[in-house]
Amino acid sequence: MPQRGSASGPQYNGISPPNLDLPWPESPETITANLLKLTEAVENPRTKFIFSRLITHLHQFVGETSLTTEEWMTAINFLTRTGQACTPIRQEFILLSDVLGVSALVDGLNNPKVSGGTASSVLGPFFTDDAPDVTIGDTIASEGMGEYMYVEGRVLDTHGKPVPNATIETWETDSEGFYDTQYSDRTRPDCRGRLRSDEEGRYGYRAVVPVAYAIPGDGPVGELLTHLNRHNMRPNHLHVSIEAPGYRKLVTALYARGDKWLSSDAVFGVKRSLVVDLKVVDNEEEARLRGFPNGKTFKLLQFDFVLVPSEEAEVARQKFVVGKAKI
Amino acid sequence: MPQRGSASGPQYNGISPPNLDLPWPESPETITANLLKLTEAVENPRTKFIFSRLITHLHQFVGETSLTTEEWMTAINFLTRTGQACTPIRQEFILLSDVLGVSALVDGLNNPKVSGGTASSVLGPFFTDDAPDVTIGDTIASEGMGEYMYVEGRVLDTHGKPVPNATIETWETDSEGFYDTQYSDRTRPDCRGRLRSDEEGRYGYRAVVPVAYAIPGDGPVGELLTHLNRHNMRPNHLHVSIEAPGYRKLVTALYARGDKWLSSDAVFGVKRSLVVDLKVVDNEEEARLRGFPNGKTFKLLQFDFVLVPSEEAEVARQKFVVGKAKI
Repeated sequence: MPQRGSASGPQYNGISPPNLDLPWPESPETITANLLKLTEAVENPRTKFIFSRLITHLHQFVGETSLTTEEWMTAINFLTRTGQACTPIRQEFILLSDVLGVSALVDGLNNPKVSGGTASSVLGPFFTDDAPDVTIGDTIASEGMGEYMYVEGRVLDTHGKPVPNATIETWETDSEGFYDTQYSDRTRPDCRGRLRSDEEGRYGYRAVVPVAYAIPGDGPVGELLTHLNRHNMRPNHLHVSIEAPGYRKLVTALYARGDKWLSSDAVFGVKRSLVVDLKVVDNEEEARLRGFPNGKTFKLLQFDFVLVPSEEAEVARQKFVVGKAKI
Repeated sequence: MPQRGSASGPQYNGISPPNLDLPWPESPETITANLLKLTEAVENPRTKFIFSRLITHLHQFVGETSLTTEEWMTAINFLTRTGQACTPIRQEFILLSDVLGVSALVDGLNNPKVSGGTASSVLGPFFTDDAPDVTIGDTIASEGMGEYMYVEGRVLDTHGKPVPNATIETWETDSEGFYDTQYSDRTRPDCRGRLRSDEEGRYGYRAVVPVAYAIPGDGPVGELLTHLNRHNMRPNHLHVSIEAPGYRKLVTALYARGDKWLSSDAVFGVKRSLVVDLKVVDNEEEARLRGFPNGKTFKLLQFDFVLVPSEEAEVARQKFVVGKAKI
């Protein structure tokens, strides 16, 4: 007689059977109804609301498409591989959310446009918190990382008031279209920096002209885009995130006019008001003044960021919530 | 000047920008509209249909709930951990599909009830393909694995005709509520077997009385159930899967009447017609006849399985598809 070894088996979670009338799930309709009844018993009203909408949409999707067992299995495998493609420096589920427009949608709902305020854009997966502190006029890119670019302007609020001492995080690709984190031999941050606006809200820093790039195509999300006959390119852009006490945090990006991928960004980040001109400056004196050590030609990006006071931002968001859903 | 190392960077997938009018995604509505336009351009009609429904429901869900950035991040983390909890012997995404009723729904849509046919039930994650071949009267469980049970009956079709030589796969828990695969020292299959019905469609085998058990609670899905105040138990059941040429494959399970988890099965597998009586037999002669070597008491489970001819099954499924969705 064989001995039973020890099983690392699951444990009962201690929750009692529900005191609900749940008919046998003989039909698809009953299955959905039972799930909704169980969800109705959840105490937290927000959790209850989210899961009742989730179950409704999920079940409607399966029902409307009469999803086959094979298609369901394909979906299970896809989701599993998406989770398993994630590493400490790669987030394939965010990428999936990005290409399905969900990230842009969540951004739009949480950071609704406030008149006069700079529009937000998707954060993307390349932000790191180890950007070096630089001062106004410094460079965020090592020499050789790309074509010279100078970025300058002011941080204001919606009333036209300068915002001094705002924390500006900025990051971008090099001329190969890669972020520093995409190099296996990264020893220190590059093409990223953190600076503060001066007393008049002004900022300025040396950078390089960013380059359009492909989002990861070697994982499940890349396969999905190919399957949907969609390209995987993002137009060239400079990420900027600005924080100052009393204002809504602004996470945005500036997109260079003329890029061929501008109107079909794979992750739906571009907004009209974020498309900027890169002015060509071909003048040795100007270059020296901006601190470019070699060469006299550079591109100039001038942009004033407008922050929204926290209270105005919250009012705008709440209008959206009330208009959209009762909890 | 630092040298750039080699980047294992993403590659452009070669697909051109779409020849579509995609307005800047300034508002949530535009983001959804752009996604749907892009999906409209997909060639395969089934893919196009599935993704247009997926995007519609996903975006509606996010919009209706005005999902916050924090909730979105919680969802991203949850899905990531669910993928990463999957191993060659654990499928956490199927478990998620199970507890959200999606597996039962897909089963119901793909294996609709055909009058007279045995109802289907969820496959679950514990099927393996290494069950030993046994002959009628043999045991599928080693001695000591649990309380004696004898399972017997016939395999018929919807016209009452016996189905000879049908392949019957059957698997169950031991008296601890564990499948053999849950023991770390599993060296060979136990509590599972494969047999064939005889010329009159009859089958019969020795087994043990299965035991109610908890589905895995130590992963993200377990946390979710606790969060939703739902228990993680499945009522005790015997899995049976039957295949015979010319018939729809039957994947089902028989559930013992009286189990306290019967009406709130965590994965929505129980149907009324699959609830069976385990008859107590307390007779030395009967026990010896059924081949039980020790003791005279056993439980008797008698059940006739009714298979649906493939054509009838397909007609039933197509009715469902046509009634539900035009592709």
